Amino acid sequence: MIVSMKLHANKADIESVCERVRDFGYKIHAIEGEERVVIGIVGTGDVTACLESIEAMPGVEKAVRISAPYKFVSKEFRDTRTIIRVNGHDIGGDEFTVMAGPCSVENERQIMETAEGVAAAGAHMLRGGAFKPRTSPYDFQGMELDGLKLLRKAREATGLAIVTEVMSDNDVDLVAEYADVLQIGARNMQNFALLKALGRTKRPILLKRGLSSTIKELLMSAEYITAHGNPNVILCERGIRTFETATRNTCDITAVAVLNELTHLPVILDPSHATGKRSLVPALSRAAVAIGADGIIVEVHPNPAKAMSDGAQSLDFAMFRKMMADMEPYVELWKRARLSEAVVAV
Amino acid sequence: MIVSMKLHANKADIESVCERVRDFGYKIHAIEGEERVVIGIVGTGDVTACLESIEAMPGVEKAVRISAPYKFVSKEFRDTRTIIRVNGHDIGGDEFTVMAGPCSVENERQIMETAEGVAAAGAHMLRGGAFKPRTSPYDFQGMELDGLKLLRKAREATGLAIVTEVMSDNDVDLVAEYADVLQIGARNMQNFALLKALGRTKRPILLKRGLSSTIKELLMSAEYITAHGNPNVILCERGIRTFETATRNTCDITAVAVLNELTHLPVILDPSHATGKRSLVPALSRAAVAIGADGIIVEVHPNPAKAMSDGAQSLDFAMFRKMMADMEPYVELWKRARLSEAVVAV
Amino acid sequence: MIVSMKLHANKADIESVCERVRDFGYKIHAIEGEERVVIGIVGTGDVTACLESIEAMPGVEKAVRISAPYKFVSKEFRDTRTIIRVNGHDIGGDEFTVMAGPCSVENERQIMETAEGVAAAGAHMLRGGAFKPRTSPYDFQGMELDGLKLLRKAREATGLAIVTEVMSDNDVDLVAEYADVLQIGARNMQNFALLKALGRTKRPILLKRGLSSTIKELLMSAEYITAHGNPNVILCERGIRTFETATRNTCDITAVAVLNELTHLPVILDPSHATGKRSLVPALSRAAVAIGADGIIVEVHPNPAKAMSDGAQSLDFAMFRKMMADMEPYVELWKRARLSEAVVAV
Amino acid sequence: MIVSMKLHANKADIESVCERVRDFGYKIHAIEGEERVVIGIVGTGDVTACLESIEAMPGVEKAVRISAPYKFVSKEFRDTRTIIRVNGHDIGGDEFTVMAGPCSVENERQIMETAEGVAAAGAHMLRGGAFKPRTSPYDFQGMELDGLKLLRKAREATGLAIVTEVMSDNDVDLVAEYADVLQIGARNMQNFALLKALGRTKRPILLKRGLSSTIKELLMSAEYITAHGNPNVILCERGIRTFETATRNTCDITAVAVLNELTHLPVILDPSHATGKRSLVPALSRAAVAIGADGIIVEVHPNPAKAMSDGAQSLDFAMFRKMMADMEPYVELWKRARLSEAVVAV
Repeated sequence: MIVSMKLHANKADIESVCERVRDFGYKIHAIEGEERVVIGIVGTGDVTACLESIEAMPGVEKAVRISAPYKFVSKEFRDTRTIIRVNGHDIGGDEFTVMAGPCSVENERQIMETAEGVAAAGAHMLRGGAFKPRTSPYDFQGMELDGLKLLRKAREATGLAIVTEVMSDNDVDLVAEYADVLQIGARNMQNFALLKALGRTKRPILLKRGLSSTIKELLMSAEYITAHGNPNVILCERGIRTFETATRNTCDITAVAVLNELTHLPVILDPSHATGKRSLVPALSRAAVAIGADGIIVEVHPNPAKAMSDGAQSLDFAMFRKMMADMEPYVELWKRARLSEAVVAV
Repeated sequence: MIVSMKLHANKADIESVCERVRDFGYKIHAIEGEERVVIGIVGTGDVTACLESIEAMPGVEKAVRISAPYKFVSKEFRDTRTIIRVNGHDIGGDEFTVMAGPCSVENERQIMETAEGVAAAGAHMLRGGAFKPRTSPYDFQGMELDGLKLLRKAREATGLAIVTEVMSDNDVDLVAEYADVLQIGARNMQNFALLKALGRTKRPILLKRGLSSTIKELLMSAEYITAHGNPNVILCERGIRTFETATRNTCDITAVAVLNELTHLPVILDPSHATGKRSLVPALSRAAVAIGADGIIVEVHPNPAKAMSDGAQSLDFAMFRKMMADMEPYVELWKRARLSEAVVAV
Repeated sequence: MIVSMKLHANKADIESVCERVRDFGYKIHAIEGEERVVIGIVGTGDVTACLESIEAMPGVEKAVRISAPYKFVSKEFRDTRTIIRVNGHDIGGDEFTVMAGPCSVENERQIMETAEGVAAAGAHMLRGGAFKPRTSPYDFQGMELDGLKLLRKAREATGLAIVTEVMSDNDVDLVAEYADVLQIGARNMQNFALLKALGRTKRPILLKRGLSSTIKELLMSAEYITAHGNPNVILCERGIRTFETATRNTCDITAVAVLNELTHLPVILDPSHATGKRSLVPALSRAAVAIGADGIIVEVHPNPAKAMSDGAQSLDFAMFRKMMADMEPYVELWKRARLSEAVVAV
Repeated sequence: MIVSMKLHANKADIESVCERVRDFGYKIHAIEGEERVVIGIVGTGDVTACLESIEAMPGVEKAVRISAPYKFVSKEFRDTRTIIRVNGHDIGGDEFTVMAGPCSVENERQIMETAEGVAAAGAHMLRGGAFKPRTSPYDFQGMELDGLKLLRKAREATGLAIVTEVMSDNDVDLVAEYADVLQIGARNMQNFALLKALGRTKRPILLKRGLSSTIKELLMSAEYITAHGNPNVILCERGIRTFETATRNTCDITAVAVLNELTHLPVILDPSHATGKRSLVPALSRAAVAIGADGIIVEVHPNPAKAMSDGAQSLDFAMFRKMMADMEPYVELWKRARLSEAVVAV
């Protein structure tokens, strides 16, 4: 941590800061600047409380944290990719992962048809919500337990692993019984009661970035789950909220590349929520492959026009098949790059 | 709902849209524009699913919702202010409400001293967190049940009502046993499992606006609580997240005036989280009074420099007393305006 | 400037950074951290180029600037308020300044009526655009020179000083001939060719904050004008662009308080552009007074419904008079605070 | 345009709106809704003034524009791609365009070396700033005319076309004499005096999206240039400003796909400003190819560590060569897609 004093900070102010630092158990290395005094502070452990305490003291211009506040999820802690094996498929490994399915499980026919449709087109996992977070209390809230049962049925029929959302710490055990991967929605990325409960399950977690969460906060939420016992976290960029209204969200695609520099966890992209518009999904999916994401999660529905939610951003089977075919040569380039990376590592 | 077709939309496209509308049970009023066809749709109830279904159909340019998606919380539903009586004090009535206290309950001495300090300076309620949402798993997470017990003790000693945060639907009943008002933090504004549970308690709710939530979404979350049975919701503007980093958040103070036009619910402002810096709190509090907020919620700590959280934005007792004194004439003007409004209403 | 190295940065990386620093002529004070190496750099002058050069060197985690990049406009440079005398009225002094008038000068009758209307209600200056920045090439672009002449006429008739926008460095001399204060619109806040030209005029400048400009960037633009020779700059908060669409912009009212801590320049607020909706203007104007702005600039039009631009946010004369009357007691409190501040300073 | 009235709007309010509409010369089609009255308005031409006038009338809930406010740049106006021929190379055609070079022209050796370096690696155009927009008045402001002369020299030596920035309407003719393409920086995207001047030159324009400009506003600025006489506009996504600080800006890569749906103009991407960090540039460039951009503009410098500006985001020659080689198979896929699109069009 570094504290810089104001231009006219007096000796008493400086001494008070130093005292506070020592109260917290850290060591001091003072630098006498020509224009102003800057104080370097050295120590292990989390410095948040100390930093917050100091930054509003008299005479202080700025207090800056130097070390990243996360540990287990950082590349400094572990420099090989975390590979998460789900139902025989490796997420974060040498194969590009495609999760596909409807926004909500609506009825048996819809979910069974979709499972077969996306499996035939090459998807590795089936997505589908049984518990639905909806902005309005008057919108469809999901089939809940009945939905989970239908997902299990679809799993048995197609062999696809299941990824589905859990919205409350109460439901973690229940959903974990039916799902292969537990999805945490953007609005729950900082639901800390839920994150702690996820640390206690053995299922891998798909953690979506919050609408206005920084990349660092996303990593901190992953750190919560890891620190509470579950190291199997898949990160997901799904668009952030900005002033632009032409798309439902603004896809921060560069976040994928940034995360690849900072963490060993797999990173996937959700082109459906990022755009909100089905015609934009195939182009953004190709870009996700090209930038080096580990996979995508896409909304597909047998009849998007009649979907109970997210119809505008869902692909039908024909569009999904075409998209998968068009992505194929990009995925080939992706694999080549991934394999050559492994060779370099050896 | 209004649907406008693209310039070159053909008859078949238009007919498909009309058919879809009828499938949802709505009536159609078509307008033949000179340049393009616009379709007006009339009907009661929520149109979200229909709108989402139509907006991605071939030939559609744009689909726009006309009615507000909330009902119980709107002024159209009820045009007199909701007044919430807490421990003999009316929130939303003719008195400006001041809630004050530390970010976290840290120990008995700290909370008892603070309760006495803020009561002496004129606060109406004591705030203090027993369950703390923290970005890092390594930061202090709150005293939990022990904290609630200390808050009860402070209530008994000073007569101040208690407002404290609840973070999980699991804890609603427990916290409701100890607190007069249940606070929902910004990161939980769209924790729908929690909102539903809040609908089933009888305690008033203090609902903070999410970091990137629109005013409309804040009202929708209030609608959740109301629709599930609890009409006593206090809204709170606490700053939104923008590109500006000079303050912790950007206070959207105009939201107070906008909410006063849209809803009958009380609206308060949190100048501590909105700024993140104690020196800015008194000026913003005065502005909150002037714009017509129903109250403020302020962080006060016996020794901010040693606070376990939010030290930089907490006032000490002397600063809080001075702020309350300086605010006094503004509060007088506020009361005069509130009373003359009542006269007009008669 | 402070440079922190990555956890596993090697000696060669550290040495390269030190060499680079010395190349730029700065001195080094290295700190050996327990976890990582942090390098303190001391020197006068602007460090931007050095910082940009270092922050992407191998082994570097972060490079942080310590000193503010502006000088003349900072409180560290001058700690008494800059008072700008315009036509016998002091902006930034002991009187709250009200600038009012239409978005655009439309014709003689409109501007003369408005000038008389706002003067009668107590405004100190007349605003009105002769050169108009419009998003669409098909919208009304202003009366240009004819508009300036009408403003002069209104000035002669009412004695009100004139504030009007200049959009190009070409027009600075022309506009300066007719106007008392030159306004720079939000979209031109970083039009550096224009800022340089403004440094060469003697007229005071009203500099509006850009839609996505930070407070620091606003100060840097003021520094441009000052560094090029003109120290008479009035800053203006007019709302920034965020995700919220209920208002035209999001008023960052706290920026007024932040600027009052950082700079000696006067700061005013534009409640018309900040809200985009006339019903919200009076409440926000009161808040501007309460938070300590030096004045406001408000859109007023004889018949807002027929205005050629910004009709939705313009007040008519009756609303403006009522707002001025309602603001009066708040302005009294403002004056009292301003005068007591002067006493403290003595 | 559609106007929806409030729930309790009375007959007089509705009649006033209708009258206003007729005053502007538009026709009315009223719809009697069950819950509220909605008024449809039909007419050609720009409706901005009418819309602004109506949206704040008593009883009005919302006024919504239906037609896009731009015309010449829209796909509805022209449905084949605009191809801009520069120095024998087609931008927007069947070849992916690479513009590369330093942020600023610093001296003869630097620009000549860079020109040769990027030409050898396969770039089609040389970028380099002679007039530099800098946030601080104390930063290097560019070599101006001397810089332009050096660019001409580099053009003669390598045959590369030149793209360079113009910052003031005063300089358009001068820069047009030396450059093949005139670049408009993000901060000048709504410098309307400049846009008008650009309409009068014959040089193609590279128009960068503003930091907080919507896609629609970018198109409106292109419409300005086109409406004033110059149809040769290349659009450029270079990142927008959001709350995220891990990158210099947030690249809204989906904007490329959105623009490809809305306009016939070529669209390129600037991965250097979008990220601010050289290590992220190659990954984002690949994504730009994959999503269907017409090209990229990249910062390259012989010795980024010693660059006078933007060093952190500039590639050196070796990195640029490697990036070009790695992009090659993606560009091949891009070409195949572009050619098959042409076949479909036939």
